[in-house]
Amino acid sequence: MNAATQSHPPKDPTRLQILERAASLFCTKGYGGTSMAEIAGACGITKAAIYHHFESKEALLADIMDYGMTIFEDQVLSQVAHIADPVQRLRETMRRNVLLCTRGWSREITVILHETTTLSDNSGAGINERKKKYVQFLESSIREAVSAGMFRRVDATIAAFSFLGTVLWIYKWFRTDGRLTDEQVADGMIDIFFNGLLAK
Amino acid sequence: MNAATQSHPPKDPTRLQILERAASLFCTKGYGGTSMAEIAGACGITKAAIYHHFESKEALLADIMDYGMTIFEDQVLSQVAHIADPVQRLRETMRRNVLLCTRGWSREITVILHETTTLSDNSGAGINERKKKYVQFLESSIREAVSAGMFRRVDATIAAFSFLGTVLWIYKWFRTDGRLTDEQVADGMIDIFFNGLLAK
Repeated sequence: MNAATQSHPPKDPTRLQILERAASLFCTKGYGGTSMAEIAGACGITKAAIYHHFESKEALLADIMDYGMTIFEDQVLSQVAHIADPVQRLRETMRRNVLLCTRGWSREITVILHETTTLSDNSGAGINERKKKYVQFLESSIREAVSAGMFRRVDATIAAFSFLGTVLWIYKWFRTDGRLTDEQVADGMIDIFFNGLLAK
Repeated sequence: MNAATQSHPPKDPTRLQILERAASLFCTKGYGGTSMAEIAGACGITKAAIYHHFESKEALLADIMDYGMTIFEDQVLSQVAHIADPVQRLRETMRRNVLLCTRGWSREITVILHETTTLSDNSGAGINERKKKYVQFLESSIREAVSAGMFRRVDATIAAFSFLGTVLWIYKWFRTDGRLTDEQVADGMIDIFFNGLLAK
């Protein structure tokens, strides 16, 4: 079954359950450390039932990533693309991306962030294309703000990956029971990224 | 053998070769996806010879991380701790950390960055303690710069993890044959982190 044709969330409840349980196992044990038998066990179904929905473990990983990218595009990219002011667009993108990393869908997002090189060229190509589109969206918004004199003359690629590193590293350290709320993290990161640390 | 007692680099050439080949395999196939037999094959020795040096795959992973942390502490932390000016100290830390991610020792560093949750509590405790020391070093340098009026009143934890995310995400995207040199990336990231994007 082609990942790109899946609806979001998958309409078949068994299929959705497999995706979510597998994402959870891949998060805690890694893709390489999780077997199809363990995924079947976590879903309370047979291995044969898993293979009815997904032809291989790699196809399952590709579908988790596809599901995660669709959530990202729905909740971040589609919500900000219409904002005319490039600085405002980037601020809102950072805020939404921070909150996506800290809330609800974090298992699928973590799998995308962590298993970056696991998919073969063939299954990984679609996901990599969609990730590249996000980098290009950031770079072009940054260039637009530089051209408008709103940003200093920074390199758009370095700025885009500084943005991504700042935001996406959150999955490594943020805990919902910590001192900081995710809204505080979002506000603080936006402030630092746009205004810098140095006192004026 | 206790990882903490290892010299850097390990003096036994077979031991060093096993660490480096295993680090390379963990980078490309993940820890969970690599077997001790494959590591033995990559070293041209028997599995029994691997077990002579490392009692388990987890002990091997712990030693790779220990080796990587020692390189990090030698090449970054020890080189900047003496710098009196906290802003200058943080700039030099970022520069050295960027170059550590892009040069020479990147396989061991990648394993540390990627396999963050793989070690059990017991073997992982020492590494996590050393990682925490780095976060605390960044936080206290940031607080020092805020107290001196050199930085704006930012939250030191958010600033420390923005710093780390910016720098450590490099292992996911930087390619030595790309448009940007690692010196350009270091200079650009320092400029953005300290000065922000907005035109004054």
